[in-house]
Amino acid sequence: MADRGVSTALDTNGLVPSHRADFPGIAADWHYLDTAATAQKAKPVLDAIARAYGPDYATVHRGVYERSANMTLAYEAARKRVAGFLNAASENEIVFTSGATDSINLVAESWGNKFVGEGDRIMLSRLEHHSNIVPWQMLAERTGAHIDVAPLTGDGQIDLDWIKENLTERHKLVALAHVSNVLGSLLDAKRAAAIAHKVGAKLLLDGCQAAPRLPVDVQDLGCDFYVFSGHKIYGPTGIGALWAPYEVLEAMPPWKGGGSMIDRVSFDGTTFAPPPGRFEAGTPHIVGVVGLDAAIQYVEDIGLDVISAHENATLAKAREALSGINSVRVFGPDKSMGILSFAVGDVHPHDVATILDEGGVAIRAGHHCAQPLMDYLGVAATARASFGIYSDDDDVAALVDGINRVRKIFG
Amino acid sequence: MADRGVSTALDTNGLVPSHRADFPGIAADWHYLDTAATAQKAKPVLDAIARAYGPDYATVHRGVYERSANMTLAYEAARKRVAGFLNAASENEIVFTSGATDSINLVAESWGNKFVGEGDRIMLSRLEHHSNIVPWQMLAERTGAHIDVAPLTGDGQIDLDWIKENLTERHKLVALAHVSNVLGSLLDAKRAAAIAHKVGAKLLLDGCQAAPRLPVDVQDLGCDFYVFSGHKIYGPTGIGALWAPYEVLEAMPPWKGGGSMIDRVSFDGTTFAPPPGRFEAGTPHIVGVVGLDAAIQYVEDIGLDVISAHENATLAKAREALSGINSVRVFGPDKSMGILSFAVGDVHPHDVATILDEGGVAIRAGHHCAQPLMDYLGVAATARASFGIYSDDDDVAALVDGINRVRKIFG
Repeated sequence: MADRGVSTALDTNGLVPSHRADFPGIAADWHYLDTAATAQKAKPVLDAIARAYGPDYATVHRGVYERSANMTLAYEAARKRVAGFLNAASENEIVFTSGATDSINLVAESWGNKFVGEGDRIMLSRLEHHSNIVPWQMLAERTGAHIDVAPLTGDGQIDLDWIKENLTERHKLVALAHVSNVLGSLLDAKRAAAIAHKVGAKLLLDGCQAAPRLPVDVQDLGCDFYVFSGHKIYGPTGIGALWAPYEVLEAMPPWKGGGSMIDRVSFDGTTFAPPPGRFEAGTPHIVGVVGLDAAIQYVEDIGLDVISAHENATLAKAREALSGINSVRVFGPDKSMGILSFAVGDVHPHDVATILDEGGVAIRAGHHCAQPLMDYLGVAATARASFGIYSDDDDVAALVDGINRVRKIFG
Repeated sequence: MADRGVSTALDTNGLVPSHRADFPGIAADWHYLDTAATAQKAKPVLDAIARAYGPDYATVHRGVYERSANMTLAYEAARKRVAGFLNAASENEIVFTSGATDSINLVAESWGNKFVGEGDRIMLSRLEHHSNIVPWQMLAERTGAHIDVAPLTGDGQIDLDWIKENLTERHKLVALAHVSNVLGSLLDAKRAAAIAHKVGAKLLLDGCQAAPRLPVDVQDLGCDFYVFSGHKIYGPTGIGALWAPYEVLEAMPPWKGGGSMIDRVSFDGTTFAPPPGRFEAGTPHIVGVVGLDAAIQYVEDIGLDVISAHENATLAKAREALSGINSVRVFGPDKSMGILSFAVGDVHPHDVATILDEGGVAIRAGHHCAQPLMDYLGVAATARASFGIYSDDDDVAALVDGINRVRKIFG
């Protein structure tokens, strides 16, 4: 670890201190609290990307020359690392996509078109990101299936009791956020899997916010599909992954056609490669994959449990500080995963974010691609502060100062 | 231009010399002749990528804070640059995709599912890349449409006379490579457009090999869809573009569902954003777009006409040299666009490539994702040398030396 310059020494509270120093893109006087939208990039990731576009650059899978053979090894090593990261049974269960949205669309088009028919049902929840709603709406429209929407508990968790009561044998799929991108709510994914499987439905987990924040073991969770995006886990943009058990992938027809995903092409008929190649048409995002490998190596070197502890501690401080401010309303469960949505009186969240920005605090304001949840919360938008491995007490203090400035201006 | 360190001074032949010095990834003793597979990256592109992942990094379209607003401006400026590069009527005619394969699949799924029906026909050619075959085969299978395959002329050009004779009013689409990735054949795209339009068919051009090699003016060509990949034009992996006239895009339903492509999401019904946003679901490949912008700026600074002249001159030297070697067979038309496929006696192309690699010459050997063309040529594979803006006479000499070594070993 030391050779990559990653420090994992514990501080006096037994917690790993912020890894801010690993992130050259975060200026000294800047407080980046929009990590749930996209994470800043660690030095080892930047270095891996620079090498991959520079002295190592070549295509994969097809070049006979040395550099291309080496790049192919790096590409497939990344697949193995992602498999290990999720505790998949094999690297052949990992499909590289352009991101979690692409992954979900792949499942909806390939698995969905084949296994979901007229009159079948899909169970979602009220807090899903648009990426975990719209592909299923489009599938439902194509096939004549129906969508059910699970409500939330009072503190903003997906109501698994309700799902248990309302699931039927017509439900082919339950698709839920592992961690909510607005409320930070953590799903009891093992229970969700057991409930889904009881009626023979599959469980897809949107792991965008979970994968960077807690250890994920797909075999232990018992889910059937897991998706996440590279850019939210300190990696490159334009890359993501889909995991599913090999036999599930094997039963899925190809989605996108093109180079690399074929066995043999002829105008008399084309045959397709086995998974995961079947789902990776065209020249892949080679450098995205190499950068994702570096990002996962980076978080694994620190440890997802350690990252989780760091974010929980930071979040708890922020939640306590904000709860103590008059007129601030905090959304979501007490124990939220590094994500804190809030409102400052009736000040529009965009005004909150603009005033915070003037003080060098970057938060997000908006519907967070979760309009049904906004409707549920009875607001058009929220302000959201989200933390990462580089967040520290100064960021929390700057957030509080900024909110107090908002209150002064609008007071 | 000088401020980006791009030299465009003419040499004594009136040609721009190789821009090899702009490419730090090409070692002094390495001869990279696999540019048709993927191009090496120019320094300004590497710098743009490093900045975008480092001090400039933020998400687009949604952040209220300054860095995100700036990144959004950069992202949309890139769209404008791509529009200018293709002479599109408006930047709203440019859709960012994960590459040309993704672009073609988008057209096949969105436009194809809507406008191609049972009994309709699609005209392809014998030299198409798998990416411009398989999506249409899958569309034909979904819809009950038929595929016709145009033969080639004796020197490896798509036979437009044959297409003219065989097109009918049942043909909804003609999809052709603007430049062949195996033979370098340049399509008379204006004539192809006129022929297609005469029966009311649309013309899609696969511009992967053309966009990096010659000036492209979609309005002058009169085509209906144009696609290309960023990584082949000295830009990042995982990014590409689709151009179509706005009214064509407007008539196309969304393909992938998710964040950003919506107008309003509710469980009662979702409405979609106008193009191009409708087709860009999820967090985009932000840095890919910024890097593509830098790559296009780089080639535009030099000039596509100048690049074309440089590649033609290099290609002519290579073709002449190879034609003079006993037992070397050269494929394709005399005037090929920077791409030269060949065979050395009956030596397997992989052996040719391996021996060349030992001498530091990187070429490609294989079917080049064009198996139907291999069948047509009566070979399982070819060796292929492909040139770029950094290629020079030393590369040609090293190629010739390598081939002579192959002949010696197998002679």
